[in-house]
Amino acid sequence: MRAVVLLSGGLDSYTAAAIAKADGFSLFALTVRYGQRHARELESARAVARALAVERHMELDLDLRAIGGSSLTSDMPVPRNRDLGAAGIPSTYVPARNTIFLSLALGWAEVLGAADLVIGVNALDYSGYPDCRPEFVRAFEQLATLGTRAGVEGARFRVHTPLIALSKAEIITRGMALGLDYGLTHSCYAPDAGGVPCGRCDSCVLRARGFSEAGMADPLLLG
Amino acid sequence: MRAVVLLSGGLDSYTAAAIAKADGFSLFALTVRYGQRHARELESARAVARALAVERHMELDLDLRAIGGSSLTSDMPVPRNRDLGAAGIPSTYVPARNTIFLSLALGWAEVLGAADLVIGVNALDYSGYPDCRPEFVRAFEQLATLGTRAGVEGARFRVHTPLIALSKAEIITRGMALGLDYGLTHSCYAPDAGGVPCGRCDSCVLRARGFSEAGMADPLLLG
Repeated sequence: MRAVVLLSGGLDSYTAAAIAKADGFSLFALTVRYGQRHARELESARAVARALAVERHMELDLDLRAIGGSSLTSDMPVPRNRDLGAAGIPSTYVPARNTIFLSLALGWAEVLGAADLVIGVNALDYSGYPDCRPEFVRAFEQLATLGTRAGVEGARFRVHTPLIALSKAEIITRGMALGLDYGLTHSCYAPDAGGVPCGRCDSCVLRARGFSEAGMADPLLLG
Repeated sequence: MRAVVLLSGGLDSYTAAAIAKADGFSLFALTVRYGQRHARELESARAVARALAVERHMELDLDLRAIGGSSLTSDMPVPRNRDLGAAGIPSTYVPARNTIFLSLALGWAEVLGAADLVIGVNALDYSGYPDCRPEFVRAFEQLATLGTRAGVEGARFRVHTPLIALSKAEIITRGMALGLDYGLTHSCYAPDAGGVPCGRCDSCVLRARGFSEAGMADPLLLG
């Protein structure tokens, strides 16, 4: 069975895709070049797609800098050393990003005859983004079934979120058990010109904490 | 109050936008260059945006030909002289198009501090597209409120569909009463190289029937 998986080049989407593959899905990976500050992750998405031997890897261009409203797509600074327990949604939230990306995945799924979408969202060790929560995912499934030809013809779309209730350490442990090479991935929101992670943005901090709690070394940081 | 309106360059979105303006909204128009066969409509979108004196007109590039699956975005022929009463959804359906476009409008709305989206969908004189139905629109409102920072902070997104229950003749009559110049618009799915409407696709046939039932001449077809 075919599944469309959103692949960013990060650790989470790689793991989610690998779990879907282990569950028997043949993978169609979708990566969006949305004008993200950390475009370095696109190279990682290609490497990860190859490592997963996906059936196809589609890269779509959609420049969300025109919309802005996020420190990932505009001139706002990316927060560093933020208190991850602080209330509120940080500036790295990209307005409606998961809604937009899932919609694109949905369009492709319809053409492929697939009713399964996979996204690596996580509602535990995360930055509090609203479009990572289970209630959002359920609402998208509803919408997908109502708003498509396939839905009218009887397909019931399912959005798989294998990581949604896992801690970052559990995600990493699961991925390691599946033999994933996290050295291929990229997580930092604001790498330097050479692609080196900053170590202080939410994404770097969550990743470091995850490897630490899992009792493993991050291969990205090894010589 | 600000509203983001999806503006295609066609007759329906022009009318929906004009109604929203008459209702007191200040308009932020979004047009997507999605690789549509009838890219001629983009010029019309610009002309319509000017005529409506919108606050801003954003044109986004998103090439849905990569996804395909529609006679508007791939090499399939556009159906001509189709029986509009026939069951089923015609090949001009673009997979998940309104879901994708509304998601983009939602992202922009969040940045603008707007909770109102406007779309010229119609569930009466239409081609049976699933993403033009009221139940789809309601599901999108749910999703929008759940999946955004603004929604979490209390915004209740509303998708305005002023045309949804009108016949094409009623839409035209309403637009004429608002002083709209339908000579600015473009409806044909498959115009010739000079932009002349084919007269036989669903969109041309619905438009012609609408003007005829409204007892008016289509300014687009006048000398």
